[in-house]
Amino acid sequence: MKRVPIIGIGAGDPDHLTLQAVKAIARAEVFFILDKGEVKQDLVRLRREIIDAHAAGPYRLVEAGDPARDRTTPAYAAAVEDWRARRADVFERLIRDELGADETGAFLVWGDPALYDSTLAIVEEVLGRGIAFEYEVIPGISSVSALAARHRVSLTRVARPLHITTGRRLAQHVPVESDDIVVMLDARDAFATMPGASEFDIYWGAYLGTPDEILISGPVTEVADRIRATRAEARERKGWIMDTYLLRKVDRSGNADPAALRRKAAQ
Amino acid sequence: MKRVPIIGIGAGDPDHLTLQAVKAIARAEVFFILDKGEVKQDLVRLRREIIDAHAAGPYRLVEAGDPARDRTTPAYAAAVEDWRARRADVFERLIRDELGADETGAFLVWGDPALYDSTLAIVEEVLGRGIAFEYEVIPGISSVSALAARHRVSLTRVARPLHITTGRRLAQHVPVESDDIVVMLDARDAFATMPGASEFDIYWGAYLGTPDEILISGPVTEVADRIRATRAEARERKGWIMDTYLLRKVDRSGNADPAALRRKAAQ
Ligand SMILES: C[S@@+](CC[C@H](N)C(=O)[O-])C[C@H]1O[C@@H](n2cnc3c(N)ncnc32)[C@H](O)[C@@H]1O
Ligand SMILES: C[S@@+](CC[C@H](N)C(=O)[O-])C[C@H]1O[C@@H](n2cnc3c(N)ncnc32)[C@H](O)[C@@H]1O
Repeated sequence: MKRVPIIGIGAGDPDHLTLQAVKAIARAEVFFILDKGEVKQDLVRLRREIIDAHAAGPYRLVEAGDPARDRTTPAYAAAVEDWRARRADVFERLIRDELGADETGAFLVWGDPALYDSTLAIVEEVLGRGIAFEYEVIPGISSVSALAARHRVSLTRVARPLHITTGRRLAQHVPVESDDIVVMLDARDAFATMPGASEFDIYWGAYLGTPDEILISGPVTEVADRIRATRAEARERKGWIMDTYLLRKVDRSGNADPAALRRKAAQ
Repeated sequence: MKRVPIIGIGAGDPDHLTLQAVKAIARAEVFFILDKGEVKQDLVRLRREIIDAHAAGPYRLVEAGDPARDRTTPAYAAAVEDWRARRADVFERLIRDELGADETGAFLVWGDPALYDSTLAIVEEVLGRGIAFEYEVIPGISSVSALAARHRVSLTRVARPLHITTGRRLAQHVPVESDDIVVMLDARDAFATMPGASEFDIYWGAYLGTPDEILISGPVTEVADRIRATRAEARERKGWIMDTYLLRKVDRSGNADPAALRRKAAQ
């Protein structure tokens, strides 16, 4: 039986690799890399470094062009769905033609494969087309976990929920069922224009885990301009950006947090 | 300067440890373990195994009693806050008295330190009391990532949000701003009694990453009884349980998912 592990590799720091991922890489004979074009060469390079560091012996690297997504249509979900189908054609060909019977061919997935990544859905689709293989999923450190760790902040507050969403959604509606909101895939600086911004602190991070990492935090109204400028400059300089942030609704009266109160009392 | 790394160790599988965590463990001279009482001995044992596997040389293990939390009061947040203050007293004593100047004393935190864990808040409180030390946070694989990986399912769907909450909250209100809901800390089988349960699939996992792992999934109305019975039996047998689940609202008409449709057409 062909084996196709889906390996979460963390979101930028090669040391975010888990021991489980290291072992899975050492067991693979083939690695599939989907080339995302010039701007994402850095990310492809990181994947190669990870493979070279942990492969047990000689391996085959199979690169394939990642089909382009239609970014012009307003029908976002439909465009992503169409893109997924065309990626499934690529995956099907890779697994069918590039992997021998009884071989193991790994996909290395950015961050955690369970968070805003289409690989699992694509692999399910290829299975549904009748291509036979086994697969397992190896969880990875997500950019969300990396963000929280670098800011040394908890994503959740005691007994309260956490909402994870996209920049596109935040621009349409600020969630009210949670006062702690993580935003990913934000191409439009949605934090800067959202209604009620003055009630929130932001913990923002770009290129997390990489040598280019940038962290900014503070009340949204105080740091929004700085984040926008930093973001624009970095994107210009590197040609691409990946950033994510936590929005935390806070009581500006300053007497709502018992720990802060006690801290003041102790000073 | 004293150094106090807060190390996420994953939620049960020792191979979920990251290379960053492995290196941080190797750098520590002291490990602080808070003893959670008889029922959690399994968890303390896992921590010790992890330390023994990765410590670079001789180390000191400092165990302290974890103050009990008042589970009888309905004032949940206040009880947790009081508990946190008493835990801070313990942490303060450990860092002040059990760690030499220039020594590194690590706290090993279950899962990811950013998800429903009080360690970061406690450490901030101890810092606020004027105890001097450096600390960094090392992210870990959360039980949420482990759950998704074992069920080979994505937590998020294309362009849609994810809500993470507690069993206590779910019992009061089923979120409407997200059709994908992860529930942690559920002592009351809230999935079984929630309004609108028939619209959801559930992906449930207990003791994830450990040899006792149990996975059950399906439409909530079909599997709720089985999960309740399995949960009660396992808790009885082991003396404790840790479980979490993803609730996913699905269109039972079966023609809403384009990938499923195409899969059918291809058969
Ligand atoms: C397609 S999603 C993939 C997320 C990934 N599976 C994970 O677990 O982090 C890409 C988004 O993740 C976030 N992201 C990924 N890596 C990041 C990094 N190193 N720094 C900041 N944000 C990152 C950004 O919001 C980006 O738009
Ligand atoms: C106090 S919270 C700590 C969460 C932890 N920081 C994490 O990242 O998973 C404890 C809750 O996490 C979930 N949990 C932790 N470990 C688990 C495991 N191995 N299997 C299933 N659920 C787990 C359960 O919902 C449990 O009630």
